[in-house]
Amino acid sequence: MAGNLSYPDAVEELIGALKQLPGIGRRGAERLALSMLGWEPEKLQYLGKLVETLPATVGSCPECGALSNAGELCAVCRLPDRDRQLVCVVETMAQVFAIEASGNFRGRYHVLGGRLSPLDAENGAGLNLEKLIGLARSGQVREIILALSPDVEGRATAIYLAELLRDAPVRVTQPALGLPAGANLSYADGATIAAALSGRTILGEGGYGR
Amino acid sequence: MAGNLSYPDAVEELIGALKQLPGIGRRGAERLALSMLGWEPEKLQYLGKLVETLPATVGSCPECGALSNAGELCAVCRLPDRDRQLVCVVETMAQVFAIEASGNFRGRYHVLGGRLSPLDAENGAGLNLEKLIGLARSGQVREIILALSPDVEGRATAIYLAELLRDAPVRVTQPALGLPAGANLSYADGATIAAALSGRTILGEGGYGR
Repeated sequence: MAGNLSYPDAVEELIGALKQLPGIGRRGAERLALSMLGWEPEKLQYLGKLVETLPATVGSCPECGALSNAGELCAVCRLPDRDRQLVCVVETMAQVFAIEASGNFRGRYHVLGGRLSPLDAENGAGLNLEKLIGLARSGQVREIILALSPDVEGRATAIYLAELLRDAPVRVTQPALGLPAGANLSYADGATIAAALSGRTILGEGGYGR
Repeated sequence: MAGNLSYPDAVEELIGALKQLPGIGRRGAERLALSMLGWEPEKLQYLGKLVETLPATVGSCPECGALSNAGELCAVCRLPDRDRQLVCVVETMAQVFAIEASGNFRGRYHVLGGRLSPLDAENGAGLNLEKLIGLARSGQVREIILALSPDVEGRATAIYLAELLRDAPVRVTQPALGLPAGANLSYADGATIAAALSGRTILGEGGYGR
C-alpha cells in the first residue's frame, strides 16, 4: 500500500491475516499474498481447506500431550520400543523433535504445552500438569527429566514442577548445564562457563586417586 | 521433521504447502504452521476462506489489467482526475504502487502481467498486449511510457513493445537511466555511470551559451 492506494479488498484482508504470523511483516505478507494470487485455484482451495480444518484434524496425544492426528496417539507414543518408566518433560513438540534428533533418548515424553511466566498471575493455567502429577504418583515411572530450556522462565518452570512432584515416588532430574559440544570456550558466556566449571566431571584421578 | 519422526498429517501437509511460498523454507514453514495451530478456530476459518476464495474475489481491472475486486475497476482507474492520454506500461501491480508512491505521475497505467524472457520460446504469451495495441492505435492516447525495469528482460520487453507500437500514432518513451537520487557516485556501478554521463543534462551554459 503506497499513499492512499490499496490492493483489492480480499488481498488487503489476506495481507492483514498473514502479517500476524511470526516473522512476517507488511512487506513479507504482501509478497506471500501476491505469490498466492499466481497459484492455481485448486491449490488455493487445498491450502484454504487445510487451514480451516486444522482444529478438527490436529489434536493432542492422549498419552503425552504432543501434537497428533485428532483422536490418535502421537508419533512417539505409537513406537513400541520405548522405556515407559522414563519420562522427559518438555515445553512444546518442537523440543520433542530436537531430542529425537539427538538420537539417544529411549524414554517417552510429556508435553506441557508452555511454561510458567513468573510475572504472570495465571501461573500454570493451561499447562498439562494433572496428567504429569498422576503419572509421577502412579508408581509406574522411575525417573522424570525436566528438560525445560535453561533460561529464566524455563528454570522457574522446572523449580515449580520439582516442588509439585516432591512427594511422588520418582527421581526428578534435569539435563546438565555446560559448554555446548563443538563450542569455542573463548566465546562462551559467563553463566555457561560458571555452570560448566561448577559441574565439572572427572577425566582421570592422577596421584590424588591412589 | 527429525529422523523418521513427523508432525501430524495435516500439519505436514500444511508445511508442504507453505514451503512453496517465496522465501519460506522447511524451517520457516514449520514455524508458520505451528503458530497457526495456536490460532482460534474462527481465525483459521477466516484465513482459510480468504485463501480459498481468492480466485473468485480478486480479478483484473478491465481497463488496465491491474489487480482489482473481481468485476470492478482497479484503485487507480477509479480515480476521476487522471490524464487518460498518458499511459504508463508496467510489469506488475507492484510497480504501480512504486510509481504512485513517487507522487508525481498523473496518467494511467497498463499492467502487462509479466515480461518477455528472451530465452523462452513462448514469447509474449499471457501478456496483456492486445489491449495495449488497441489503445495505441485508438488515437486517444498521446504518449506511452514503457516503464519496464532496466535489466536484461525489461530492456528486451521494452524494445519488443516499441517495435510492436511503431506504426501507432503515439509517442513511445522510457524513463531516464542515471544515478539514483541520494546515491554516492563512488558506489554506483559502471553501467549506471555510463548511462548517467551519456544522458547528462545541462545545468548552465556559461560562456559557451553567449
